[in-house]
Amino acid sequence: MGLPYKESFTMPFDLCDVKHDAKLPLLLAYCLTVSGRQSQLLGRSDAYLLEQFQLVWIITDYEVKIKRLPLFNETITIQTEALSYNKLFCYRQFDIYDQEGNQLADILTYFALMNPETRKVAPIPEEVVAPYQTEFVKKIRRAFKAAPLENPKSKDYHVRYFDIDMNGHVNNSKYLDWIYDSLGYDFLRHHNPVSLRLKYVKEVAPGGQIRSLYVQEDLTTRHEIVSDGQVNAQAIIQWQKIEK
Amino acid sequence: MGLPYKESFTMPFDLCDVKHDAKLPLLLAYCLTVSGRQSQLLGRSDAYLLEQFQLVWIITDYEVKIKRLPLFNETITIQTEALSYNKLFCYRQFDIYDQEGNQLADILTYFALMNPETRKVAPIPEEVVAPYQTEFVKKIRRAFKAAPLENPKSKDYHVRYFDIDMNGHVNNSKYLDWIYDSLGYDFLRHHNPVSLRLKYVKEVAPGGQIRSLYVQEDLTTRHEIVSDGQVNAQAIIQWQKIEK
Repeated sequence: MGLPYKESFTMPFDLCDVKHDAKLPLLLAYCLTVSGRQSQLLGRSDAYLLEQFQLVWIITDYEVKIKRLPLFNETITIQTEALSYNKLFCYRQFDIYDQEGNQLADILTYFALMNPETRKVAPIPEEVVAPYQTEFVKKIRRAFKAAPLENPKSKDYHVRYFDIDMNGHVNNSKYLDWIYDSLGYDFLRHHNPVSLRLKYVKEVAPGGQIRSLYVQEDLTTRHEIVSDGQVNAQAIIQWQKIEK
Repeated sequence: MGLPYKESFTMPFDLCDVKHDAKLPLLLAYCLTVSGRQSQLLGRSDAYLLEQFQLVWIITDYEVKIKRLPLFNETITIQTEALSYNKLFCYRQFDIYDQEGNQLADILTYFALMNPETRKVAPIPEEVVAPYQTEFVKKIRRAFKAAPLENPKSKDYHVRYFDIDMNGHVNNSKYLDWIYDSLGYDFLRHHNPVSLRLKYVKEVAPGGQIRSLYVQEDLTTRHEIVSDGQVNAQAIIQWQKIEK
C-alpha cells in the first residue's frame, strides 16, 4: 500500500446524466485528475515525466465495483493510493465515499508508461514511482480476458474532434461512452451499473470510424470496440434494474 | 449592470483539446456552472426555481469574442454579471481573464425561462431576478438571424446517451461539438476561433439523428444543425489561421 491522498468534490451538472447520477465515464476521468494532483504534489507531474523520461501514463484496465453512483450536487470524497507496481504496470486504487463515510465505489486501475513518439510501452523507472512509497511486486495481475462475442448487436460511431485529448489519441473515457451508448436510451434509463471490467487493447486514431458491439445475457453485457478489423477495447458490465 | 461575481479556475486536462487549448463547448458549459454558483449564493438556485416556479433556465443565444483560448494548466478568472432583463430574456456577461488581468474572452448569453413539462418559454418573474440587482429594459436585443445555407457540406450524427443532460434534452454544449466536428480534424488543428454567434432554435430530442451543415467562405463558417426537417441551431464562426 502506498501514500494515500484524498479530495472532496461536489458533483456538478455537467458530470451528471438524465437520471441525476454521475456519468461513469466522466467520473472515472475525474478520478484520474485527482491522482494527477497527487503526482504533482509528489514532484511526479505529467510534465516532469515527459521532460525527464519522454513518457506518458496510459490506462490499460479498469476494475470497477459500484454500490451507488454519486448524485448531482452530492459531495463525495475520492481517496486514492498507488497499491503496487511491477516491471510494466502500476496498480492504483480509488475509493469513493459519501459524506457519511459509506463507500459508493471501488475502482482499480492499471497504469503503464508509453513513449508518445513510438507509442510503445516502456518499463517503469524506479525513480518515477519511489515517492508514492509503494511496493514492487514481481507478479503481474491477471487482466480481464474476454471471449469473442457471438452474434453481437452493433452501432457505428465516427471519432469526433473533441474525442481526441492532449495526448493526440481518443480519450479513455470515450470508449465507455460508445460502450454505453450501444445499449440504447431505454435500457440505460432503467438500469444502473454494478460492476465493470474494461480493457484497453489498442488506441483509436483521430478521424476514424469505430464499431461498438455487444451481447446481452440477463443483466450482463459484454462489449467490444473495433476499428479497421482490430479490437480496441473489451468490457463486461453487470447491471441492476432500477426499482420504481 | 448587476452584481458582479468571479471565480478562479485552473484548466484541467479534460477541458483541453489536442492543441492544449480549452475546448470551447466545455469552457462555455463551465461558465454556466459559475453563474449557477452565483445564483445559489443569491438564493436563486435551479432547485429554488423549479420548486417555486416550475421553471428552468435555458440558453437561447451566445455571442462570443475570443482573443485567445485558455491553455491547459493556465489559471483563469471568470467574471460574470447579469446585465439586464426584459419580459422574456435575461442577458448575462462573462469575461475571462488571464493571471495578468488580460481579457481572453468576452461572452454574452441570452437566458430564458422554460416550463420543463410543457417545454414552453415563460415570462420572467421580477422576484426571480431581483437579487441580481440588474435593470429591466423594455428593448429586446436583436438576436442573430442567419440566412439559409446554400450548397452546404454536411455530416450526420446520432444523439448519444451522454449527450442528454439532467433536463432531459441534448445539452447546449453538444450542438457546438457537432458544429465544430463537421469542419474536420485538419481544419480545426490549424485554425482558432475569433468570434462565435450561436442561436438555439429548437431542442433536439433524445435518441434522434441530427445533421450538421456548413458553408465556408474564407475564414468564416456558417452552420446549421437540423433534424426531422427542422432547424435546431444556427451559428457563424470567424476563424484565424494558426501561424507556425
